Amino acid sequence: MTPEDLVEIELIKQLKYKYMRCVDRKLWSELSECFTGDATCAYSGGKYAHEGRDAICAWLEGSMSADSFHSSHRVHHPEIQLTGPTTATGTWALEDTVIETKLGFTLRGAAFYEDRYVKEDGSWKIEHTGYQRSYEEMQTRKDVPGLTLTASAWSTGGRSVIDA
Amino acid sequence: MTPEDLVEIELIKQLKYKYMRCVDRKLWSELSECFTGDATCAYSGGKYAHEGRDAICAWLEGSMSADSFHSSHRVHHPEIQLTGPTTATGTWALEDTVIETKLGFTLRGAAFYEDRYVKEDGSWKIEHTGYQRSYEEMQTRKDVPGLTLTASAWSTGGRSVIDA
Amino acid sequence: MTPEDLVEIELIKQLKYKYMRCVDRKLWSELSECFTGDATCAYSGGKYAHEGRDAICAWLEGSMSADSFHSSHRVHHPEIQLTGPTTATGTWALEDTVIETKLGFTLRGAAFYEDRYVKEDGSWKIEHTGYQRSYEEMQTRKDVPGLTLTASAWSTGGRSVIDA
Repeated sequence: MTPEDLVEIELIKQLKYKYMRCVDRKLWSELSECFTGDATCAYSGGKYAHEGRDAICAWLEGSMSADSFHSSHRVHHPEIQLTGPTTATGTWALEDTVIETKLGFTLRGAAFYEDRYVKEDGSWKIEHTGYQRSYEEMQTRKDVPGLTLTASAWSTGGRSVIDA
Repeated sequence: MTPEDLVEIELIKQLKYKYMRCVDRKLWSELSECFTGDATCAYSGGKYAHEGRDAICAWLEGSMSADSFHSSHRVHHPEIQLTGPTTATGTWALEDTVIETKLGFTLRGAAFYEDRYVKEDGSWKIEHTGYQRSYEEMQTRKDVPGLTLTASAWSTGGRSVIDA
Repeated sequence: MTPEDLVEIELIKQLKYKYMRCVDRKLWSELSECFTGDATCAYSGGKYAHEGRDAICAWLEGSMSADSFHSSHRVHHPEIQLTGPTTATGTWALEDTVIETKLGFTLRGAAFYEDRYVKEDGSWKIEHTGYQRSYEEMQTRKDVPGLTLTASAWSTGGRSVIDA
């Protein structure tokens, strides 16, 4: 590994971080910049598999665009391997939380991503992404006494309503 | 981006990590080293806004110093942009948990930081920090059956009391 | 800090990420590659202390190998200091969740690691690792209404069973 390799690795990390940010902030047009045209995905152990940037982005937007859908997808532990001047692989650990206030559930999970990246016209893109769950759990929110949503990017302007 | 840029980016990351560590470990005098004298903050979508290092640090210490206040503020996904030899911006994803055993609540949240940094006398400092919540939720602890605090840095010396 | 230092720091981070991945994916033989022969550990404020790679790995495997034990150990905020050509120290922030479906509990915690690393035959290894809890809490799962495990690497092939 050389200092020049580290530049490529940092650029791949920033690509992944942009992808996660676009998902959780619902930035759907910026999200599509993250993928190659022929990208593939295999989320949740292959349960959610799609082919092509447009199909992936349409599925993500369709699943997550509601204002009642609050998500935090956080990735950790990048083990990025450069496999050639314009190709790389990477594993990541995921933790995600979804709070769906209209459907009334919380979902919490952990997983490991296995990704492939390619550099096109000087920019790294996701060629394949997918993860296998370590675990996932779901909970109905109405059954939890004393639980209140106190801030939302979509209904409180990202400010807490707690009186501190 | 050059290898030399990466050194600056790493130093900015370490600054942010030091800030988070000082908050969660209640290291208030070390915390003040992280800010410029005229730093500003706008936490929680601007709800908690302060001007000047002393005002920011006083507010953080005042909010978080009680032994019953247990926090985990974790930042992820650094997208750091060097904007000049001594200036930079950065976005980060936050996840935070607060367990307040005296007041009897748990708070969990997710947010995105937008920061500005400046290099003063060879050291990067936070010039501005602030975040907008994706979500925040609060829960009363006494209403959760079978929930027990089993370790605390302030009441068990950081050791678990579980009999394993 | 030089670009060459960053290479060493990246290699130390990848070592730590490999360690965490091996723990959560139950890759016990790959895990043992992460330690020096005479490594020591002091987890949970020193409550779980062991001497020697074999003793550490035996304890980790013994504690975490059951298929009913689902864990997510995530480390954050690396402040790595190179202290010589083949020695380094590092602090990290930990967040961990354990879901034990047979024993019927969830454990959630936060902590700070203080590690030492050495480079042996060109590879960084963990010489000492240990953490002090900020907090740890435990909850019985049967008392939580509407809580269901919906995916497991060991019982559903890492796929969600939710009908989406």
